Amino acid sequence: MKNVLVLGSWGFIGSNLLLALDRRFQGTCDIIAFDRQETHPLHLICPSVKKVYAGDFLDQTLFEQIFSENQIDTVFHLVSSTVPATSSNVRFDVETNLLPTIDILDQMARHGVSKIVYLSSGGAVYGNSSSRHKESDEVFPISSYGAVKVAIEKYLFMYAHQKGIQPLVVRLSNPYGPYHMNRKQGLINVALRAAMNEEIVQIWGDGTNRKDFIFIDDCVNAIIDLVEAESWGNIVNVGSGSEHSLNEILQVVSELKHGFSWQYSESRSFDTLNFALDVSRLEALTGMHAFTSLSEGIQKTYQWLQRQHEVR
Amino acid sequence: MKNVLVLGSWGFIGSNLLLALDRRFQGTCDIIAFDRQETHPLHLICPSVKKVYAGDFLDQTLFEQIFSENQIDTVFHLVSSTVPATSSNVRFDVETNLLPTIDILDQMARHGVSKIVYLSSGGAVYGNSSSRHKESDEVFPISSYGAVKVAIEKYLFMYAHQKGIQPLVVRLSNPYGPYHMNRKQGLINVALRAAMNEEIVQIWGDGTNRKDFIFIDDCVNAIIDLVEAESWGNIVNVGSGSEHSLNEILQVVSELKHGFSWQYSESRSFDTLNFALDVSRLEALTGMHAFTSLSEGIQKTYQWLQRQHEVR
Repeated sequence: MKNVLVLGSWGFIGSNLLLALDRRFQGTCDIIAFDRQETHPLHLICPSVKKVYAGDFLDQTLFEQIFSENQIDTVFHLVSSTVPATSSNVRFDVETNLLPTIDILDQMARHGVSKIVYLSSGGAVYGNSSSRHKESDEVFPISSYGAVKVAIEKYLFMYAHQKGIQPLVVRLSNPYGPYHMNRKQGLINVALRAAMNEEIVQIWGDGTNRKDFIFIDDCVNAIIDLVEAESWGNIVNVGSGSEHSLNEILQVVSELKHGFSWQYSESRSFDTLNFALDVSRLEALTGMHAFTSLSEGIQKTYQWLQRQHEVR
Repeated sequence: MKNVLVLGSWGFIGSNLLLALDRRFQGTCDIIAFDRQETHPLHLICPSVKKVYAGDFLDQTLFEQIFSENQIDTVFHLVSSTVPATSSNVRFDVETNLLPTIDILDQMARHGVSKIVYLSSGGAVYGNSSSRHKESDEVFPISSYGAVKVAIEKYLFMYAHQKGIQPLVVRLSNPYGPYHMNRKQGLINVALRAAMNEEIVQIWGDGTNRKDFIFIDDCVNAIIDLVEAESWGNIVNVGSGSEHSLNEILQVVSELKHGFSWQYSESRSFDTLNFALDVSRLEALTGMHAFTSLSEGIQKTYQWLQRQHEVR
């Protein structure tokens, strides 16, 4: 990796990926950042970011410019126009995620750029099941958010065959940690923010459903390790490989902040109830075995939140 | 089935489905036909066709009208805006196949219509492999034509979960027989037409690749049997379960018409080289076991072609 293009650079995963790339390759890997906004706090503290392009993901003229002006070797595609909770217009999801991705793949093929890391979603792609999902499982997503992710995965491999694109699909579990700004998505972050602000958090369902959660440092390190290991042409589950119930998380948070409270409400049709990832392919490709424990990860995230709070 | 809507009624599969529905349910099953053209020879000889709507597949105002004016119970979705040989604009394939299908699923949900038979493609969906494909195999299509079929399949099952749509996905092998009008697609029909017109047929590859071919009567009977067996929620391979090389077919055709000749040329990137379908699910669901033999099917098709020729 010498010149990487990060699409969705200021998002939760993007921010942490930028910091990790900066830490690991400073001076040898230049980052071209793309997001909706030009400026962002990370812009100032991340010297590997050499250029920033701001604009709409649907603006193909801009992407033509980006690929013409830079000799990009690797694309990190972290853009999603919706989150599971807001994804209800199926046509919009296709028009703002699948179609621009197809356009970018065409641009890559025209400009001789072949490597692309695509951020898919384990929880959304595999659908409802308590069994441990393997990448080779046939997937039937139950949400619009998941369906468009699966469609994009299929198109990536079609372009691999037709145009020599080298995709690496990351099916991510539930990441949590610093720089998670979305106030509606990501239970751990939502709960920690609520705890700090002494607000009551709302839990969809009874809190007994168990999911795989991964600390964001582990997540971006896994993605970089996969790229370093030249894992092109693979779909790889990226998770901690262990599951925790929402109630366990609430318990950890209430130990950090006394008086923290929550209430249960009915689960929604697009929620995945349980999900567990088989991470043996990740381990085999990268040699990665140790993951940050839930209590350590939650504690680090809470410390970061408190620092943010103090800075303000 | 009392009121069925056939989308793509005048195409190859559509025409034969209309004739078969007419034969099997005359008087008890009314057909609403939709296609680009209003009139068609079958229009006159198929009394089950009660109404014809002509228009563009992307015209959702028309579909709103169709679903409002008719109490449809079952939709047969046989429309494809492209064939494998012409499918090179990936964005166009999405915009003219996936997006209107999403719109129609939304219309169905709004009008309380749940049952939909979708015609997918075994050859395009499974990609290159000489192994016998099962419906549970993870699929990685290698063409735009196949990718959009897979995407539509995924969306059908997402709508099943979200809106109670009951899909039946038919992954068809290579059908041949009467009413195949496309001059570029379907080797058997192209070869027979060339034989009759004393033209030379072009074969992509060396003719040794083996594929599953199914006579169209078996195909539409299988589809109707699956509906009769209430096979909703299933993906079902529909093929003969046996494979023949292109050279075998050319041999059968040359026995029907002396002097028939062909030439070989290089295979194209979107061609599937070999493909074999496991049809045990079809057999289990319908009890169907006997298929028309290749030589009988080709002979029947040739007879039909000759009659057409005489009528002209």
